[in-house]
Amino acid sequence: MTRRFALMLDPVAADEQRDDYTGTFTQVDATAPALSVGELSTQRGDGVFESIGVVDGHAQEVVPHLERLAHSARLCDLPEPNLEQWRQAVQRAAAQLGAGESVIKLILSRGVEHGPTPTAWVTAAPAADFSAVRRDGVKVVTLDRGYDLGAAERAPWLLLGAKTLSYAVNMAALREAKRRGADDAVFLSSDGFVLEAPTASLLLRFGDRFTTPAPNGGILHGTTQLSVYDHLSARGFEVGYDRIPAGDLTRADAAWLVSSVRLAAAITAVDGVPLPVDAALTDELNAYLLSPRD
Amino acid sequence: MTRRFALMLDPVAADEQRDDYTGTFTQVDATAPALSVGELSTQRGDGVFESIGVVDGHAQEVVPHLERLAHSARLCDLPEPNLEQWRQAVQRAAAQLGAGESVIKLILSRGVEHGPTPTAWVTAAPAADFSAVRRDGVKVVTLDRGYDLGAAERAPWLLLGAKTLSYAVNMAALREAKRRGADDAVFLSSDGFVLEAPTASLLLRFGDRFTTPAPNGGILHGTTQLSVYDHLSARGFEVGYDRIPAGDLTRADAAWLVSSVRLAAAITAVDGVPLPVDAALTDELNAYLLSPRD
Repeated sequence: MTRRFALMLDPVAADEQRDDYTGTFTQVDATAPALSVGELSTQRGDGVFESIGVVDGHAQEVVPHLERLAHSARLCDLPEPNLEQWRQAVQRAAAQLGAGESVIKLILSRGVEHGPTPTAWVTAAPAADFSAVRRDGVKVVTLDRGYDLGAAERAPWLLLGAKTLSYAVNMAALREAKRRGADDAVFLSSDGFVLEAPTASLLLRFGDRFTTPAPNGGILHGTTQLSVYDHLSARGFEVGYDRIPAGDLTRADAAWLVSSVRLAAAITAVDGVPLPVDAALTDELNAYLLSPRD
Repeated sequence: MTRRFALMLDPVAADEQRDDYTGTFTQVDATAPALSVGELSTQRGDGVFESIGVVDGHAQEVVPHLERLAHSARLCDLPEPNLEQWRQAVQRAAAQLGAGESVIKLILSRGVEHGPTPTAWVTAAPAADFSAVRRDGVKVVTLDRGYDLGAAERAPWLLLGAKTLSYAVNMAALREAKRRGADDAVFLSSDGFVLEAPTASLLLRFGDRFTTPAPNGGILHGTTQLSVYDHLSARGFEVGYDRIPAGDLTRADAAWLVSSVRLAAAITAVDGVPLPVDAALTDELNAYLLSPRD
């Protein structure tokens, strides 16, 4: 079973409909040279991406991920992706992945400098083993994201609602969290509201109500958070989107970071202050997130 | 004369000193596949870069660029680059470039995901023809950068003083400027101070004094701006670094965007308000910036 590879996608316009896009995929070894140095993804972080969890060969929540890819592309003035081509690429990659957990990444770059079209590819690789973090949770620190809550609407060129390849700050925040002895970070707006984690959404529980920061352009709308909300609603819980002051973090009855590959990780402490952990619900959420979902 | 190529640099520790690094360079065609899909530069914009102007085969201000590369690497927790290796790579690339203007880019990426070392390369290509913009100047619009002036010091994980590969916002700002009928943008802090352009430094003239926003971590310290200040000081002008309110932009006696490859472009209008243009000094600055400088 090939577990680490990429499919390069030939450019196909969004309005060019075909039944079968197989001929537009070229499979390459993940370690082989595949991209030129002129790639604007590499020179400028200029492109958008998605990370899709794969469980036993089943790619999870593919349509919401594809829709977010198209949304990010729109915010970045990239040509509209042909979502059926991407969907078939994901299916083709997933079919080659064996049992266990894997990750498929979708990357749509602006292309080669001065080139005519975007560059597009899908990578497939085994996921890291997150069983310990799903069981033990994560300690987080809060970090200022520098923007106030109004910045996204006021300044759309900041691309705050797009999942771009320019993730250097997200990576730096994770390093800062580790320097402070934590496992992950939660970004705060400069005016003191809770945003998201560098690579995950935040979920808080107050009694039988769950809440997450409203995705009003300033943060990504998490595909896993949406899926978890479906599950919690079906279980009879109330779910909502709010403007959440930073001080509410340590008042929550429980909190989680949720994302496509690590899934649900209970937050055990915020800036060194312990948080109650709901181990049973965490297990339930992860069992749900590991079940096949479309 | 080969005009478009890259040199891939083998990893060499900063403290490993050699006389000749030739054996650590591999020349590749600029259009050939050279990078793997696992590259964190391409997946995360996770790395730092420099752009060096080359005139008739002479690379300009190499040492300041190398020092800024090392500074950016430090801010991003990347291993310290071996500057002598980079210097020799730049010299080797420059030697292959013919007459006229070229650009050499230095890219230091965090490397391949889960890999042991950074990936490093240098690209060389002909520069675009900037003679018209040096003569005619640029219309700019002001755009909110979203951060207040204190953000850089308060939140170093925002990497505001580093020249990272995460340039999606800079590119989006240039597209927004063009949508508004301008040629370029000047970023403002959210508290109303002038910062820099997406790919250039800003220079303002008030009488016989020149000023530029203080590079206190929130903006890059421009290598070309430093060089222009050397020239202006030698000519007897006063030069300084200030906290500049946005309103001062249209009160200036003249203003320029200066950068390593486009060099000095006079600002002819700010948000549609015409600005006085000093054509003679612009010509003088560009003549100086095109002369060989180390």
